[in-house]
Amino acid sequence: ISAGYITVDDIALPVREADSHKGDYGHVLVVGGSVGFSGAPIMAAKAAMRSGAGMVTAVVPYGIYNAAAASAQEVMIKPVTDDGVGRISAKALADILTLAQKADVMVIGPGMQVYDEIFCILRNIIDSIDIPIIVDADGLNAIAQQKDLLKNSKGNIILTPHPGEMSRLTGLPIGQIQCQRIDIARDFARQHNVVMVLKGAATVTACPSGWTYINSTGNAGMATAGSGDVLTGVIAAMACQYRCFDKASYIGAFIHGLAGDKAVENKGMHGLVAGDIIEMIPAAIKYIYNH
Amino acid sequence: ISAGYITVDDIALPVREADSHKGDYGHVLVVGGSVGFSGAPIMAAKAAMRSGAGMVTAVVPYGIYNAAAASAQEVMIKPVTDDGVGRISAKALADILTLAQKADVMVIGPGMQVYDEIFCILRNIIDSIDIPIIVDADGLNAIAQQKDLLKNSKGNIILTPHPGEMSRLTGLPIGQIQCQRIDIARDFARQHNVVMVLKGAATVTACPSGWTYINSTGNAGMATAGSGDVLTGVIAAMACQYRCFDKASYIGAFIHGLAGDKAVENKGMHGLVAGDIIEMIPAAIKYIYNH
Amino acid sequence: ISAGYITVDDIALPVREADSHKGDYGHVLVVGGSVGFSGAPIMAAKAAMRSGAGMVTAVVPYGIYNAAAASAQEVMIKPVTDDGVGRISAKALADILTLAQKADVMVIGPGMQVYDEIFCILRNIIDSIDIPIIVDADGLNAIAQQKDLLKNSKGNIILTPHPGEMSRLTGLPIGQIQCQRIDIARDFARQHNVVMVLKGAATVTACPSGWTYINSTGNAGMATAGSGDVLTGVIAAMACQYRCFDKASYIGAFIHGLAGDKAVENKGMHGLVAGDIIEMIPAAIKYIYNH
Amino acid sequence: ISAGYITVDDIALPVREADSHKGDYGHVLVVGGSVGFSGAPIMAAKAAMRSGAGMVTAVVPYGIYNAAAASAQEVMIKPVTDDGVGRISAKALADILTLAQKADVMVIGPGMQVYDEIFCILRNIIDSIDIPIIVDADGLNAIAQQKDLLKNSKGNIILTPHPGEMSRLTGLPIGQIQCQRIDIARDFARQHNVVMVLKGAATVTACPSGWTYINSTGNAGMATAGSGDVLTGVIAAMACQYRCFDKASYIGAFIHGLAGDKAVENKGMHGLVAGDIIEMIPAAIKYIYNH
Repeated sequence: ISAGYITVDDIALPVREADSHKGDYGHVLVVGGSVGFSGAPIMAAKAAMRSGAGMVTAVVPYGIYNAAAASAQEVMIKPVTDDGVGRISAKALADILTLAQKADVMVIGPGMQVYDEIFCILRNIIDSIDIPIIVDADGLNAIAQQKDLLKNSKGNIILTPHPGEMSRLTGLPIGQIQCQRIDIARDFARQHNVVMVLKGAATVTACPSGWTYINSTGNAGMATAGSGDVLTGVIAAMACQYRCFDKASYIGAFIHGLAGDKAVENKGMHGLVAGDIIEMIPAAIKYIYNH
Repeated sequence: ISAGYITVDDIALPVREADSHKGDYGHVLVVGGSVGFSGAPIMAAKAAMRSGAGMVTAVVPYGIYNAAAASAQEVMIKPVTDDGVGRISAKALADILTLAQKADVMVIGPGMQVYDEIFCILRNIIDSIDIPIIVDADGLNAIAQQKDLLKNSKGNIILTPHPGEMSRLTGLPIGQIQCQRIDIARDFARQHNVVMVLKGAATVTACPSGWTYINSTGNAGMATAGSGDVLTGVIAAMACQYRCFDKASYIGAFIHGLAGDKAVENKGMHGLVAGDIIEMIPAAIKYIYNH
Repeated sequence: ISAGYITVDDIALPVREADSHKGDYGHVLVVGGSVGFSGAPIMAAKAAMRSGAGMVTAVVPYGIYNAAAASAQEVMIKPVTDDGVGRISAKALADILTLAQKADVMVIGPGMQVYDEIFCILRNIIDSIDIPIIVDADGLNAIAQQKDLLKNSKGNIILTPHPGEMSRLTGLPIGQIQCQRIDIARDFARQHNVVMVLKGAATVTACPSGWTYINSTGNAGMATAGSGDVLTGVIAAMACQYRCFDKASYIGAFIHGLAGDKAVENKGMHGLVAGDIIEMIPAAIKYIYNH
Repeated sequence: ISAGYITVDDIALPVREADSHKGDYGHVLVVGGSVGFSGAPIMAAKAAMRSGAGMVTAVVPYGIYNAAAASAQEVMIKPVTDDGVGRISAKALADILTLAQKADVMVIGPGMQVYDEIFCILRNIIDSIDIPIIVDADGLNAIAQQKDLLKNSKGNIILTPHPGEMSRLTGLPIGQIQCQRIDIARDFARQHNVVMVLKGAATVTACPSGWTYINSTGNAGMATAGSGDVLTGVIAAMACQYRCFDKASYIGAFIHGLAGDKAVENKGMHGLVAGDIIEMIPAAIKYIYNH
C-alpha cells in the first residue's frame, strides 16, 4: 500500500463559479469552548471562514458567549446551555443536533475539556449525524477514554491527534508512535474506519482504504497554542468544498502548513502565533490555486 | 424600457466641501441582530461608516450589547429590550421610532431572525417612517410571509434579496428567477413600489419607474457570510449622500462589488471574508472618485 | 490683537530624554461614556495614548465596562456607579475626584449624554479641581444650559465646541458663528476665562489673553463620528507634555488635522473613520518632530 | 565583579527542532489583573506568546473575564474568584496552585493592586512553588511592604522594578538609586537571592552570583503604560526556553528594548504604545536569530 508525499502539484482547488452563492461553499458547525478555553473554537471557526467555507456557526457555552461574539464578526456565535462551570451541557444536545441539520460539516472538541457530559454529547452526535465530523483536542481525549464512542460511526469521522493525543488513543508510548507514524496511523484508520490525521512534522493522513498521505509543508514555529485548532478549521472548510474525506484532510494539512510557512517568513519561528497562520491562509490558497 | 449596465463612468460621487460637518453626511440607523447573529448589524454599520455616512447608530437587543459595543468604536450601539431569547422585542418599538427621528436612513433586518414580533416591528416602521428604509435578510423573509407589510409604505423602501430570498418573496423557483432576473426584479419593483436590488452575479437594481441597472463589479469570492450585510450598509450610506433611492442602490451595489474586487486581489476568492470587503470600501470609493 | 496662522514651523515638540519614565509624560483622566455611546471616551483615551501621554485612565459607567475594557489594552478602564440607565451617576463623584488626584489632565464629556446628574458632576469637578480640564460634547451641552457652571473655574478650562455646540453655548445662530469665528471665539474666551477651541474648517483657538491661533491642517473627510473625541484626546496629551493651555490647544488641533490629512491619503474623504485618525497620530507627530 | 554590557553578539537563541511540539517551549502562567487594570496581564500574556512560549494561561479575577477573553484568542484565560471589588481573592489560591503544576514559569503582579489578600496569595505562591516566578508591578509593591515575603523563596524569583518600585523595595530615594544602579541592584540580588532586573535606561540585570548585565537596547518612547507588562511577558517566555534565570532576564530585557527600537522607527517616540512593542517582538527575535 502506497504512502504518497503530497506537493502543490497534487492539489487542484475547486474553481468558484461566477453565479455561485455562499450556500455552495458549505456551512461549518464548530462545537467547542469552555470558560478557560474560549479561543480554541473561535480560531477553528475563523480558519474555516478564511479557507473558503460559505458560512460558519460556532456553538459555545453561555459562559464564553460575550467573549466569542466580540471576537469574530463573520462567524455566527450560538450560545448553548452550560453545565454551571462554563462547559457545554448535555442539555444542549437537542440544540446542537438541530443546528447540525443545517450544517455540512461539524468540528467538535476544541477547548471543550474532558468531563462527564462530553461523553454523552459525543456519543449522541457520532451515533446520529452523518455529515463529516472532525474530532479534535478534548474530543480525542474523550474517545481515548471510551473507545466505543467510534463504534456506531457512519464512516464520517476525521480524527486530528498530535502524538500525545495519539498515545492516549492507542495506549502506545509517544516514542513508538513517532518511530512508526505511518503504520500506526494507518492501522488505527482501518481498524476504526476513520480518517486519521496524525499531526507533527510531516503530518500523516491515513484513510480507511489504506491510502496514506505525507505532508510536505509546515515548520517548528507552528508548535504554538491554537495551531491545531486552526488545522481543524481548514480541514472542515475543505470538507465542505471537496465533499471527500481524504482530500479534505490531506489538502487541509497542506494548506495549514503552507500558511505557517508563509507566516514564519514574516514572524520567524519564535514569534509566530496561531492567529498569524489564520491570516496567511488566503495567501497559501492563492499560491496553490495559481500554481 | 431600458436596462443600463453601470460602469465607473456613470458614477459621480458627491464632493466633500471644506466647511462641511458630520451632520451633512447623514445618520444611518441599523436595526438588527440577535443572540446567534450578532455580527450582521455590526458589519452593516461598519460598512456604512466606511462608505461616508457621518454617523451610524446600531440598535441591537440587550443580549448582544456587550459583543456589539466591543466591536465597533465609531458606531453608536443602542441596546433595546429583547424578547427573553435574545431578539428585539416589539416593546422596543417606541425606542426605535424615537431614534429614527434623528436618522436619515434606516437599515432593518440583518441578523434579526424571523419570529412573531418582527412582523409587528416591521409593520409599524414601514407604516410610520418616511426616511429611506433598506430591508434585508430576515426583514425580507418576514415580508415574504406577510406581503401586505409593504402595502402602506411611502415609496421609501429598498429591498436587497439574494435569489433565495427573492424566491420566497415571489413564490417563484430560484431557477426561474435566475433566468429572468431583470424582468422579475422589475415587475416586483413596479408592483410593490420599491427599489429592488436583486443580488447575485450582475446584481440587478430595478426601480418603480421601470429603470433598471445592471452591476458590472463583484466576484464569486464575495459568496461568503456577511457580504450581504456589507451591501446594505453601503447602500444606506449612499442614500444619505445622494438622497435618491435609485442612485443609492445601484451605486451602492457598484461600490460593494468593486471593494470585493479589490479584496480578492489580496485574499483570493477562497480566502476572502466579509470584513475584507469593508476594509476595501475606501479604496473602491477613492478609485471611483479619482476616475 | 493678533490672530496667528499656525504652521509646522511654529511647533517645537518636547524632546524625550533617555532616562525619562512614563510619569514624566503625564496621566490623562477621561470621564465619559454611557450605554449607547461607549466608543467616545475610548477614542479620546486611545488618542491620548497615541499622542504621548504616559498613562491614560478612562472612567466609564459600569454598563459599558465590558465593552470598554475589551477595546483598549493600554488604557486603564475604571468603571463607576451608573444611574440605572447606563450613565455616570453623581454618586461616582467621590471616585472621580480621587482619581483626579493622580491625574495631570482631565477630559470630561464625550458620550456622557445630558441628564440631571451631569450638572452636579460637572459643577463639583470644575469647582474643586485645578488640573487642566478639557470639556467636550455633552459637557459643553450641559454648560450651554447652565452657564454658571464655569463661574468658579480656576482658569483651567479648555472648551472644544463644534459650531452647533458653540451656537448652544452662545445663543447665536450657527450662520453668524461661522461668519465671525475668530471674534466670537475670542469674546467667549475672554468673558469666561477659558481656552476656546472652535472646531470646523480652520479651527480657531482663542485664549483669555486675546491671543488667537488659526489652524492650517485638516480636511472634510474628518467630518465623521468620533473625530471630535480624538481631538480632545490629543489636546489632553499635549496639556500633559506642555503644561500650557494655549500650546496644548493649538498644537493639539494642528496634530489632529495633520493626522487626518495623512489618513485621507490612504482612505480618501468618504472612507475615513475616526479610528484612522488615531492610527495616523504617530506619523503626524513624527513629521512635525523631524521637520 | 564584572558588569557586562550585553549586545546582540552575546545572545544565541535556541534553535527550534523540526519535530518539536508546543510543550517543548513551555507554559507560562500569568497571574494578575483587576477591575480597573484589565490590560496589564493581557499584555504580559500576549508578549509571552510573541516571544515563543508554547502556551500561555492568564489567571484573572471574574470581573475582567469577559474583557480579557475577548482580547486574546491564543491565550487561555482562566477566571478565578474575586474579592467582590474585582481583585483576585485569596480563595483563588488553590486554583492558582493547581494551574501552576502544569506551568513552567509564573508571572505575578501586573494590574493586581495592593490589598490585603495579595500578601496571602504571594506568600503561599513563593513558599510553595519552585518554577521560576517573575514578580512585577503590584507584586513588587506588596514585597516592599512585607519584605519577608521573599524569605522562604527557593532561589527562583526574578524581580522587575522600575526605579520608583526599587525605591519602595529598598527605602532609598530614587535619585540615589539612579546614581548607583549597578551596586544597588547587585546588593539587593545577593541579599535576597533573587535576579533583580532594574528597569529604566540601560536596564541592569543583577544575579545572586554577582554577575551583572547592562542592557544596550531601548529608548524613551517606551516610557508608556504597559511597557513593563510586556517586559515581564518576554522574560517569562525566555525562562521557558532557556531554563536559566540569568539568561532569561538579560536576554528578555534585550529583546524588549530591541522591539521598542523597531517600534519607534515606525511610530516615533511620542506615538509609541505598548501594543506596538508586542507586535515588534517577532522582528526583534528574528534580527537576533539571524545575526
